[in-house]
Amino acid sequence: MALVNENFLKLPGSYLFSDIAKKVNSFKVTHPKQDIIRLGIGDVTRPLPEACLEAMHKAVNDLSKAETFRGYGPEQGYDFLIEAIIKNDYAPRGIHFSNSEVFVNDGAKSDTGNIGDILRHDNSVGVTDPIYPVYIDSNVMSGRAGELDIESGKWSNITYMPCTSENNFIPQIPDKRIDIVYLCYPNNPTGTTLTKAELKKWVDYALENDTLILFDAAYEAYIQEDDVPHSIYEIKGARKCAIEFRSFSKTAGFTGVRCGYTVVPKELTASTITGERVELNKLWNRRQSTKFNGTSYITQRAAEAIYTPEGKKQIKENIDYYMTNAGIMKEALESSGLTVYGGVNAPYLWIKTPNNMSSWKFFDQLLYEANIVGTPGVGFGPSGEGYLRLTAFGERENCIEAMRRIKNWL
Amino acid sequence: MALVNENFLKLPGSYLFSDIAKKVNSFKVTHPKQDIIRLGIGDVTRPLPEACLEAMHKAVNDLSKAETFRGYGPEQGYDFLIEAIIKNDYAPRGIHFSNSEVFVNDGAKSDTGNIGDILRHDNSVGVTDPIYPVYIDSNVMSGRAGELDIESGKWSNITYMPCTSENNFIPQIPDKRIDIVYLCYPNNPTGTTLTKAELKKWVDYALENDTLILFDAAYEAYIQEDDVPHSIYEIKGARKCAIEFRSFSKTAGFTGVRCGYTVVPKELTASTITGERVELNKLWNRRQSTKFNGTSYITQRAAEAIYTPEGKKQIKENIDYYMTNAGIMKEALESSGLTVYGGVNAPYLWIKTPNNMSSWKFFDQLLYEANIVGTPGVGFGPSGEGYLRLTAFGERENCIEAMRRIKNWL
Repeated sequence: MALVNENFLKLPGSYLFSDIAKKVNSFKVTHPKQDIIRLGIGDVTRPLPEACLEAMHKAVNDLSKAETFRGYGPEQGYDFLIEAIIKNDYAPRGIHFSNSEVFVNDGAKSDTGNIGDILRHDNSVGVTDPIYPVYIDSNVMSGRAGELDIESGKWSNITYMPCTSENNFIPQIPDKRIDIVYLCYPNNPTGTTLTKAELKKWVDYALENDTLILFDAAYEAYIQEDDVPHSIYEIKGARKCAIEFRSFSKTAGFTGVRCGYTVVPKELTASTITGERVELNKLWNRRQSTKFNGTSYITQRAAEAIYTPEGKKQIKENIDYYMTNAGIMKEALESSGLTVYGGVNAPYLWIKTPNNMSSWKFFDQLLYEANIVGTPGVGFGPSGEGYLRLTAFGERENCIEAMRRIKNWL
Repeated sequence: MALVNENFLKLPGSYLFSDIAKKVNSFKVTHPKQDIIRLGIGDVTRPLPEACLEAMHKAVNDLSKAETFRGYGPEQGYDFLIEAIIKNDYAPRGIHFSNSEVFVNDGAKSDTGNIGDILRHDNSVGVTDPIYPVYIDSNVMSGRAGELDIESGKWSNITYMPCTSENNFIPQIPDKRIDIVYLCYPNNPTGTTLTKAELKKWVDYALENDTLILFDAAYEAYIQEDDVPHSIYEIKGARKCAIEFRSFSKTAGFTGVRCGYTVVPKELTASTITGERVELNKLWNRRQSTKFNGTSYITQRAAEAIYTPEGKKQIKENIDYYMTNAGIMKEALESSGLTVYGGVNAPYLWIKTPNNMSSWKFFDQLLYEANIVGTPGVGFGPSGEGYLRLTAFGERENCIEAMRRIKNWL
């Protein structure tokens, strides 16, 4: 009798973004003439950089002739892309990797979800709260999260580290040992960052406690301020305790093209139950060789083009566009009397709901009274209650119009 | 203290195709002037069909303009592709699915590897032997395979169903209950098939024993004979017991483009430990929504183009080319005195080694005496011992030259 993985049944039936979609649909049915502005889901809207488009046309042409045809590529990614990554994303910051420490993938979601494959099912897990739901849901699926307490919205084997305005969105270092800690900086959903000094505390904690840090840097390209680390490997010792996830989705508009990468340094080890140290790089390599067959050749050529002089210029233009949106939105929201976080080193605005309103109530009011779709903060975890996320990935005029509506409404 | 998944450590350190690569490299070092013909790895060599190339150029152009830009797509795949799949691959055979029963992916390897996520870690597993190594290795990683017996090459919790010339490569229905059975037809590596009547026995077994069949039909486009099922859903009752994996890799030369799909019918359920039935479609949907972010838009447009009249004609030309190779090879090998299986409904030739030579010895001799790279059958499982696989995916002249060399050598 085939048995299901019952951990899946512990997951709440509904999913944040489908709940939102349902609410938006009922609004549309009852208000068919209203023009809705969607600032909810963190998806880009600008076309791909010209350098990437050219590289993709060329890659498609490569596949049109037997002499230049490419079949199966390395599961770990092509060297042409891995070398561009190392040379451009790390070497200028004094960080050096060999090619076999970088794994190209079809997007950070896959790898942040699948990384648990190489880790024991009973490691304890820590997350900053609020957080990207994939970290928790993938641990629920593997049984690592324990049981859900409906009232608190918390899983029994997960340590939640609140990040709210009370602590200036800086998670407190735990006073106990946690095996695996997820950190995402610049943060989704709050848009906040850690300074080097703050991140160093985490690396020190991890080295002392033999904790594995899973560092999601999907938004690093949006960093504007100097003291904010782009990579956890800027911190000494991080190669011994951290895996870093990067994505081209927000860097270069690849949400539909699908490419990212994961860095697993050779120095990074974890333990067997008897205390033997095991290189995680080897395990991840084995995982990817067995359960992944490489990223599309065309996609990898597009990603390589990001690192050309033209590509760099073009992605900067797109990022500047979104960050200008963020600046406009932040200023308008604040001048509307709202308290807003993020938006400086990340394309996310994290708004405190007025009058301690609940996240969902503010979401509903925003939808019905200003016809704007945001994301209720509580959807990202218990400490997101009382907040709402807006993204700066929209078109400029929509962002401006949305801010005008909020100003008139409040 | 972060702990590793120790199941990974049970996997043998070396991997079949890297062992082969090492042997080929040493040969090249000692014989730098010899011209090697590679018929080992099952990778295509023909350029992509024109219809796919055109569709990809057009899709790249879609991403160049804000009005036609596509960001995140549905994790399950775009309806335009799902509808083309249902209409062309299933409806003509009288099989009907709703869109939500088809999941587009980045290739069958990912899904055949990841499907175990939704199943309990202690289900028993059955495989035909020899077999595609991913089925077993992914079960080793999840702990489902048990322990390896070095001598026999078998895992303790896996039931091996030998497929050899003795039983005409038709696996015997097990005399005990097995929870999950992997079937791959047309078969990789043997190139053999099951008739509808033979496959029906498996569906009947599965329905009687509440067994889940994981049916890999990656090579169905190569079927030439009438009585060979293209889909397990041609067999009555299969929707209640089988998941089907399909791939565009061999159908349309997509090994570097990355696309396939998985069918999980709504009627298909498995059990909780207390006997409650659970729809696997729901679990797989949740798995994909959490740990996958959809297949490249460009890739999906290319796959859609396979189903146009031009696309169908062009992929048939490529398949005919490879199957003509297979026919030429089969005839030449047989006239060289070898016993050969497969090659009729699949692009694989499964050669009995002469004089009961071991797979690796025959591999070495073929490399050193005819300068041809094959794949030793034992690399696919214990019952592959005494066989060697050649693929028909090479260029015509290389296939002919390889056969000439074998004839002269034997």
